Amino acid sequence: MGAPVAIVMGSQSDWPTMKLAADVLDELGLAHEARIVSAHRTPERMVEFGKGAADEGFKVIIAGAGGAAHLPGMLAALTHLPVLGVPVQSRALSGLDSLLSIVQMPAGVPTGTLAIGEAGATNAGLLAAAILALSDDDLSARLQAWRAARRDAVAETPTDN
Amino acid sequence: MGAPVAIVMGSQSDWPTMKLAADVLDELGLAHEARIVSAHRTPERMVEFGKGAADEGFKVIIAGAGGAAHLPGMLAALTHLPVLGVPVQSRALSGLDSLLSIVQMPAGVPTGTLAIGEAGATNAGLLAAAILALSDDDLSARLQAWRAARRDAVAETPTDN
Amino acid sequence: MGAPVAIVMGSQSDWPTMKLAADVLDELGLAHEARIVSAHRTPERMVEFGKGAADEGFKVIIAGAGGAAHLPGMLAALTHLPVLGVPVQSRALSGLDSLLSIVQMPAGVPTGTLAIGEAGATNAGLLAAAILALSDDDLSARLQAWRAARRDAVAETPTDN
Amino acid sequence: MGAPVAIVMGSQSDWPTMKLAADVLDELGLAHEARIVSAHRTPERMVEFGKGAADEGFKVIIAGAGGAAHLPGMLAALTHLPVLGVPVQSRALSGLDSLLSIVQMPAGVPTGTLAIGEAGATNAGLLAAAILALSDDDLSARLQAWRAARRDAVAETPTDN
Amino acid sequence: MGAPVAIVMGSQSDWPTMKLAADVLDELGLAHEARIVSAHRTPERMVEFGKGAADEGFKVIIAGAGGAAHLPGMLAALTHLPVLGVPVQSRALSGLDSLLSIVQMPAGVPTGTLAIGEAGATNAGLLAAAILALSDDDLSARLQAWRAARRDAVAETPTDN
Amino acid sequence: MGAPVAIVMGSQSDWPTMKLAADVLDELGLAHEARIVSAHRTPERMVEFGKGAADEGFKVIIAGAGGAAHLPGMLAALTHLPVLGVPVQSRALSGLDSLLSIVQMPAGVPTGTLAIGEAGATNAGLLAAAILALSDDDLSARLQAWRAARRDAVAETPTDN
Amino acid sequence: MGAPVAIVMGSQSDWPTMKLAADVLDELGLAHEARIVSAHRTPERMVEFGKGAADEGFKVIIAGAGGAAHLPGMLAALTHLPVLGVPVQSRALSGLDSLLSIVQMPAGVPTGTLAIGEAGATNAGLLAAAILALSDDDLSARLQAWRAARRDAVAETPTDN
Amino acid sequence: MGAPVAIVMGSQSDWPTMKLAADVLDELGLAHEARIVSAHRTPERMVEFGKGAADEGFKVIIAGAGGAAHLPGMLAALTHLPVLGVPVQSRALSGLDSLLSIVQMPAGVPTGTLAIGEAGATNAGLLAAAILALSDDDLSARLQAWRAARRDAVAETPTDN
Repeated sequence: MGAPVAIVMGSQSDWPTMKLAADVLDELGLAHEARIVSAHRTPERMVEFGKGAADEGFKVIIAGAGGAAHLPGMLAALTHLPVLGVPVQSRALSGLDSLLSIVQMPAGVPTGTLAIGEAGATNAGLLAAAILALSDDDLSARLQAWRAARRDAVAETPTDN
Repeated sequence: MGAPVAIVMGSQSDWPTMKLAADVLDELGLAHEARIVSAHRTPERMVEFGKGAADEGFKVIIAGAGGAAHLPGMLAALTHLPVLGVPVQSRALSGLDSLLSIVQMPAGVPTGTLAIGEAGATNAGLLAAAILALSDDDLSARLQAWRAARRDAVAETPTDN
Repeated sequence: MGAPVAIVMGSQSDWPTMKLAADVLDELGLAHEARIVSAHRTPERMVEFGKGAADEGFKVIIAGAGGAAHLPGMLAALTHLPVLGVPVQSRALSGLDSLLSIVQMPAGVPTGTLAIGEAGATNAGLLAAAILALSDDDLSARLQAWRAARRDAVAETPTDN
Repeated sequence: MGAPVAIVMGSQSDWPTMKLAADVLDELGLAHEARIVSAHRTPERMVEFGKGAADEGFKVIIAGAGGAAHLPGMLAALTHLPVLGVPVQSRALSGLDSLLSIVQMPAGVPTGTLAIGEAGATNAGLLAAAILALSDDDLSARLQAWRAARRDAVAETPTDN
Repeated sequence: MGAPVAIVMGSQSDWPTMKLAADVLDELGLAHEARIVSAHRTPERMVEFGKGAADEGFKVIIAGAGGAAHLPGMLAALTHLPVLGVPVQSRALSGLDSLLSIVQMPAGVPTGTLAIGEAGATNAGLLAAAILALSDDDLSARLQAWRAARRDAVAETPTDN
Repeated sequence: MGAPVAIVMGSQSDWPTMKLAADVLDELGLAHEARIVSAHRTPERMVEFGKGAADEGFKVIIAGAGGAAHLPGMLAALTHLPVLGVPVQSRALSGLDSLLSIVQMPAGVPTGTLAIGEAGATNAGLLAAAILALSDDDLSARLQAWRAARRDAVAETPTDN
Repeated sequence: MGAPVAIVMGSQSDWPTMKLAADVLDELGLAHEARIVSAHRTPERMVEFGKGAADEGFKVIIAGAGGAAHLPGMLAALTHLPVLGVPVQSRALSGLDSLLSIVQMPAGVPTGTLAIGEAGATNAGLLAAAILALSDDDLSARLQAWRAARRDAVAETPTDN
Repeated sequence: MGAPVAIVMGSQSDWPTMKLAADVLDELGLAHEARIVSAHRTPERMVEFGKGAADEGFKVIIAGAGGAAHLPGMLAALTHLPVLGVPVQSRALSGLDSLLSIVQMPAGVPTGTLAIGEAGATNAGLLAAAILALSDDDLSARLQAWRAARRDAVAETPTDN
C-alpha cells in the first residue's frame, strides 16, 4: 500500500512552499508522496489522480496552488477523501487571490484551507497528521510529542538577539 | 451544426445573471445554448463538455460562476476555444472572490474575464459576438448597429425622472 | 461514548449559520453535539472544553465564530484533534475579518478553514464526515451516496423559474 | 494587409510586461504590431487608433495599462473589434487598481481581461490566438501543439532544484 | 458666456448622485450645466466636449462615473481645465472600483478626486466653488458664509430624538 | 505677497514624495513654499497655518500625509482655499490607508485627492497650476506647453531598451 | 468636577452608534458627557475641547467618527489624556475607511481603537471603565461583576427558538 | 510590587517590533516587563498569565501578535485590566490580518488597538503611559514633556537631506 498522504501542487514553483508540508510529515514519521498535478495544464492527469486517489491508498490530500488556485477545490470535487488546501503566496496579490480561490468553495465540496504560504504548508502537514492520528495511536503520540516540544521551546522572555 | 456560443454556469442560481448574456445574444441574432455544468458537483460532465465543445460546434464558451469560481478556468484548460468568464456576485464578498478566482489564471491558460455580475454577463455576450463577427460580416453589421443604437440612446442631459 | 463531532460556536447568534453543519451531519447519520463556548466571554470553559475534547470522545471539532474569530484557533491550540473553522459572516466586513482571524494561523497550530457563512458550515460537516469516513466504511458509503445524489440533482439546463 | 494583432500600451514602462504577449505570439507564428498609445497623454492618437484599427486590418487588440488603466476600456468604446485588457502591476496597489479599472466595464462595452502582470500578457497573446484560430486551421493546429507541449512539459514530481 | 461649471456624468443613473453637486452650486449661486457624456458609449462626444470645454467658457469640470470610471481621467487628458472626479457608488464593489479608477491617474494628468457617492458630489461642487472663488470675491464671501452656517448648525450635544 | 502655492506635509519623511510637486511647479514657473506642518505633532501650528493661509497670500494648498493622514482634511476644515491631498505611500498598507483617510471626507469639507505617492505629488502640482491658470493666461500657456511637450514625447513604438 | 468620560462624535448621525458607549457606562455607574465636536465643521471647537479636556476634569476621551475619521487622532494630538477611537460604520466602505483613518496613527500620537460600529462603541465604554478602575476599587468591582454576569449569561447549548 | 506594564508577544520574532514599546517606556521612566506568551503554542501559560496579571501587579498589558493574532483579545478575555493590542506586520498580508484579528472584538471584551507595526508598538507604550499618568502626576509631567519635545523637534521646512 502507498503513502497515506499525497502532496500535490500545480507547478514546480510551488515546491519551495509545499516542501514544508513534506518536512513536517517527515518529522512525524508519516509517509507521503509529492506530485505535480496541474489543474490548468494537465486537467486530465488531475481528474485521473483525483478519481483514483482513494484506490491508490491515499487517505488525505494536501493540495497547494497560487493565483486562481483551482487544484484543491477540483480535487475535492473528484474524491471523497479529505482535501486540505494551501494558498501559495502569489506575486501581485500576495496570496489573497489564492486564499479566496481555495476557501470560498460552494456548499457540498469542502476544502480545509490553511494559511497563505509556508505556515499553511506546515499546518497542512500537521492537520493531515491529526486526521490520521484519529486511528493511529502511535502517530497520535508522536504528534502530541511534537506539539509538546514546540510548547516547551517557547522562551520565557524575548532576547535582543 | 449546433449553436456557436455556449453559456455554461455552475448552478441554476447563476442563471438570473447569466441570462443577460443570452438576452444580448438574442438581440444580436446569435444562436446559443445554455447548460449547467458544475465544476464541483459534476466535474466529469465538465471535463466531457470542455473536451468536446469544439467538436460539438461551439466557437466561444461563456462561463459564469461565483465564489471559488473554477468553471471558467477549468474549461479554458480543457478546450482551445476562447473562454470568457463572468464572475457572479457572491453573497459575502460581493464577487471579489469570484473575480479573482476567474481572472488570476497562470500563464498558459487564459480566461477573458468580464465585470462582476449582470454587466459582465451582458458584456460576455457582446465580446462573443465581436469574436464571431471577425468572420461573419452580417453579424459584424448587426453588432455595429447595436452599438450605434446604444450610442444614439444616450441623452444629452440628465433628467430628474 | 459521546458523539464524534463537536459543533461549537462563540454565541447563540452563530447558530443560524452553524446549524447547517448539524443539518448535514444529520443527513449523513453522524452524531454530533452543539455547544456554546465563547473564547472571549467564557475563556475558561473554552480551555476546559479544548483540553478535554479528546477525553470526551470527540474526534473532530467544528468551531464557528465571527469578527475577531479566535475560537477555532484557540481550540486548535488546546487539542490535538483536527479543528475545522467556519468564518461566520460579520456585519461590517462581511466575514473577511472572520476568515483572516481563523485561517491565518501560525505554523504549528492548524485550523482547516471553510468558506464564509452557511456554505462553510455545511462544508465543515462534510469535511468532518470525510475525515471520520477514513475509518468507517459505512459512513464512507453514505458520504459517497450523498455526493452522488448531489451530482445527480444537477439539471442539464437552467430554467427561468 | 497589416498584422492581425495590435499590442498597445500606455507607456514604454509597460513594455517589459507587454513584451510577453509579443513573445507568445511569435512562438505561435502570429504577426503583431506593438504601439504606444497613451489614453492620458495622447488621447487623440488613441481615438484615431481605436476608430481606425479595423480598417488597418487588425482583428484583435491587446491593450495593457496600469493604475487608473483606461486604455483597454476606451479602445473597446472606439472599435467593434475584440479588446483584451492586461492589468500592468502598479507600484502602490500591486495592480489591483489596474485590474478593477479594466475589468469593471459597464454593460455595452466589454474588455476581456486577463491576469495582473506578465501572466496576463502571455495569456492575452494566447487568447488572441484562440480567437483568430476560429477561422484559421493552421493557427489552431499550432495553438493546440503549443498547449500540448506545455502539458507534456509538466514533470511528474517536484525536484529540490 | 456659458456657465463656469460643467457637471458631466456617464449615465442618467449617475444623476441622483451628481445632482448633489448641482444642488450645492445652486445654494452658492454658481451657474452650472449638467450633461451626459459617456466615455464608453459616446467616446467622440466626450472628446469633443473635453477639447471644447475651455472654449465653451467652462472653468471647472466635475465628472462622475462608477465602476471602471474613465470619464474624469479622460476629460483630464483632453482639457487643461481643472477636472474634479466623483466616484459613483457601484453595485458589487461599493465604489472602490470607481475610486481607484478615478484617483490613480499617472503623473501628468491629474483628477482631483472626492469621496465615493453623494458626499463626494457635494464636495465636488464646493471645491469647484473654492477654485472659482479665488478670482471672485462675491463668491468667496458666499462660500465662507455657507461654511459658517454649516459650522453654526452643529449642535453642542447629540439628541435621541 | 507670498507664493501662491503652499506645499505642506506632516513630516520630513514625506518630502521625497512631496518634492515632486515642487519640481513640477518649478518647471511651470509657479512660486511655492514648502513647510512641515504636522497635524498630530504640531496641531496648533496646523490650525494657525490653516486659518492664516489665505491671509498669507496662498491660493492653493497641497498637503501630503501618510497612514492616518489627517493633514489635508484638517486644512480643508480650516481654510476656504482649495486643498489638494496627496496620499503618501505607507509602509504596511502601501498607501491605501493614506488614500482613504484623505479622500473619504464628509459632505461640506472637500479635499481634491490625487494618486498615491509620487504620481500624486506631481499631479497635485499640475492641478494647482490648472487652478491658478484660470486667472493667469501666461501660466495657462506654460501649462498647455508642458502638456503638449509630454504628449509629443510619447514614442510611437516601445523599444527593448 | 465634571464627568470622567467624554463621549465625543463628529455628527448627530454618529449618536445611534456612540450611544452604546453611554449605555454601558450607565450600566457601570460611570458618569459621562456626550458632545458633538466635528473635526471638519467645527475645528476650532475641537481644538478648544481637546486642549481643555484635562482641565475640564475628563480622564478618558471616547471619540467616534466615520469615513475620513479624523476626530480621534486629532484629539489625541491635542491632549495627553488617553483617547479611545470608535470607527463608525460608513456607507460605501462599511467602516474600513473609518477604521484605517483612526488606527493607523503615526508614532507619537496613539489612539486606542475599538471595533467598527456598535460593538466598538460598547467596548470603548468598557475600556474607559477598565482604565478608570485602575484607581477606583469600587468601579473595578462593578466592572468585574459586569463581566461575570456576561460570562454567566452564556448558555451551554444553542437553541432554535 | 512588579512593573506596571507588561509587554507580551506571541513569539521571539515579534520582539523587533515590540521592543519599540519597551524603548518608549524606558524614555518615560516607566517600568515594564517583557514576556513571550504564545496563545497558540502555550495557551495554558497565556491563561495563567492573563488571570494572574492583576495579582502580579500589572496595570496595563501591551500585547503584540501577527497573522491570526489572538493574544491581545484572549488576554482581554482573561483580565479586567486594560489590554492594548499591537498588530505585528505579517508577511503575506502586511498586517491587515493582524489588525482585523485584534481590533474586531465582539461587544464585551475590548482591546485598544494601535497601528500596524513599529508605530503601533511605540504608541502602545505611549497609551499605557497616558493611562498610568491619570494617577501619577510625575509620569504625567514626563509624558507631557516627551510630547512637547516631539512637537518642538518638528522643523519648519523640509530639507533635501
